[in-house]
Amino acid sequence: MYEQLFTPTVQHTLDLVGIFVFAISGALLAVRKNFDVFGIAVLAEVTALGGGLFRDLVIGAVPPAAFTDLGYFVTPLFATALVFFLHPHVERLQTGVNVFDAAGLGLFCVAGTTKAYDYGLGLTASACLGLATAVGGGVLRDVLANEVPSLLRWDRDLYAVPAIVGATMVALCIRYEALTPLTTGLAVVTAFVLRLLALRFHWRAPRAWNRRSTVVEGD
Amino acid sequence: MYEQLFTPTVQHTLDLVGIFVFAISGALLAVRKNFDVFGIAVLAEVTALGGGLFRDLVIGAVPPAAFTDLGYFVTPLFATALVFFLHPHVERLQTGVNVFDAAGLGLFCVAGTTKAYDYGLGLTASACLGLATAVGGGVLRDVLANEVPSLLRWDRDLYAVPAIVGATMVALCIRYEALTPLTTGLAVVTAFVLRLLALRFHWRAPRAWNRRSTVVEGD
Amino acid sequence: MYEQLFTPTVQHTLDLVGIFVFAISGALLAVRKNFDVFGIAVLAEVTALGGGLFRDLVIGAVPPAAFTDLGYFVTPLFATALVFFLHPHVERLQTGVNVFDAAGLGLFCVAGTTKAYDYGLGLTASACLGLATAVGGGVLRDVLANEVPSLLRWDRDLYAVPAIVGATMVALCIRYEALTPLTTGLAVVTAFVLRLLALRFHWRAPRAWNRRSTVVEGD
Repeated sequence: MYEQLFTPTVQHTLDLVGIFVFAISGALLAVRKNFDVFGIAVLAEVTALGGGLFRDLVIGAVPPAAFTDLGYFVTPLFATALVFFLHPHVERLQTGVNVFDAAGLGLFCVAGTTKAYDYGLGLTASACLGLATAVGGGVLRDVLANEVPSLLRWDRDLYAVPAIVGATMVALCIRYEALTPLTTGLAVVTAFVLRLLALRFHWRAPRAWNRRSTVVEGD
Repeated sequence: MYEQLFTPTVQHTLDLVGIFVFAISGALLAVRKNFDVFGIAVLAEVTALGGGLFRDLVIGAVPPAAFTDLGYFVTPLFATALVFFLHPHVERLQTGVNVFDAAGLGLFCVAGTTKAYDYGLGLTASACLGLATAVGGGVLRDVLANEVPSLLRWDRDLYAVPAIVGATMVALCIRYEALTPLTTGLAVVTAFVLRLLALRFHWRAPRAWNRRSTVVEGD
Repeated sequence: MYEQLFTPTVQHTLDLVGIFVFAISGALLAVRKNFDVFGIAVLAEVTALGGGLFRDLVIGAVPPAAFTDLGYFVTPLFATALVFFLHPHVERLQTGVNVFDAAGLGLFCVAGTTKAYDYGLGLTASACLGLATAVGGGVLRDVLANEVPSLLRWDRDLYAVPAIVGATMVALCIRYEALTPLTTGLAVVTAFVLRLLALRFHWRAPRAWNRRSTVVEGD
């Protein structure tokens, strides 16, 4: 059981932290889209739990953790209440939210990869599902809000790459039997720091060849 | 088996009624979006079966009922034919459609909750899946039609709340071992009546604090 | 095992061809939407594998083939690289892409129907899943790109009908125990040719009665 590299309590607390910060990002988008309080709660739940739900359906872990662990369900409701009453203050803390979201990204890409491997998937597929766990909720959030997923847009700072790096590090550690709490933590921190650097220096991924010169204006 | 509180035939007939009215709402949106006859059929099927399909995937009831019961598949095709040939008349009957849709909402939130509980989920998770069964098809319909889900919009009459109330009533009845055909019927009727009242008096849910004053204009 | 009517190698090669051409169509849309290289890869993967992933989740074939066969995962990355570096040339080959896409449509609707039947679904449900396998990836592609699925739009040449015909032919062959490599190939070719004819002669499906006259202008 690679999934339980940390003690269960530590692992569970880290999961809840990741769920909470993802829920905040969903709730804030819902406020910006002018949704009502139920819309805010739905978007918070979907953003927080969507990636893990997708992973669990794919690996056959039904019912998914999102529906068996009451804490997973309740945490986004706390985030909803917080944003509902305090959203101008939460928005002002956008930097804080970004830092926590980066932490959630690191935690989820690593936890998703190890859980998929535990369920018997190959290393490449496990890393893919780690990535999907980390970014899936945000994609669902944007689809429900009827926006182009920010994951796909070229004018957003790198988001997938840190998760890919973290998930790949875990897969390589499993491959070479070097997965310990230390290397796991290192993968989390690497993804976390890469995301912070991408935010700080506005790292972006290239668009298709021949496209960059012609589209800067006009689009 | 809580799911079969009514005789199977009654239960099945109620299911088909719910599927039919949800399919009508999907088909009407497809006509408004100017889709062709296949687009109408797809949207009718997705609206009618999407919520139950999601629930069945989550609880591990594969293949889902939508793919094992031929009546579930054929009913939306009847709705498609009806809307295809008679849609101005169907639209004029919007009040009637709303009443039937409210009935579908009541039936699905109750049936979804009991089925999820039968598959071993906890009470909170079962109620959530009852809600998802009732509203999931409509959300998928709006996503496919590239619109903001009307479930999430603040300027629509309450839709989630009646389903939450109905699902919660069922969960409480299970908790206190009071689930009988009578209490089940009561939950269906409560959700149904609440939805009708929300339509009649334009009940709406609040948006985020500080938001109401600033956004009424401009958005 | 109806699924293996051809030798495994032939079947697998045909699958990869279908995946490749669907991935090209996803990658080209991503370039048109101005996504970065990761967005292109995501849209290529989703378009190529989304339909089969949906089918596998519904029939309970977990983990889905998309996550167990490395070739399925790597092929869309080749398509991504091709489009990334050569997209003006690929776009100029739009006719070629259309022909390959039609081939993918034929292959996937037939393979999807037989696989669903192998997993114990009824004939109607199997044909539906064959259709879903063929068109599901394209629908997901358009939803992620925040566009109305071209499958549903009346102003696009027939796409669902060829797949429906191909899937129905397979279901009828199974029903009358006439499924051989020959009849299977015939179903693939029929869907393929129908799609090419629809493209050539701009065959379209009707919209709702009374709608055609009133909407031609104004919409």
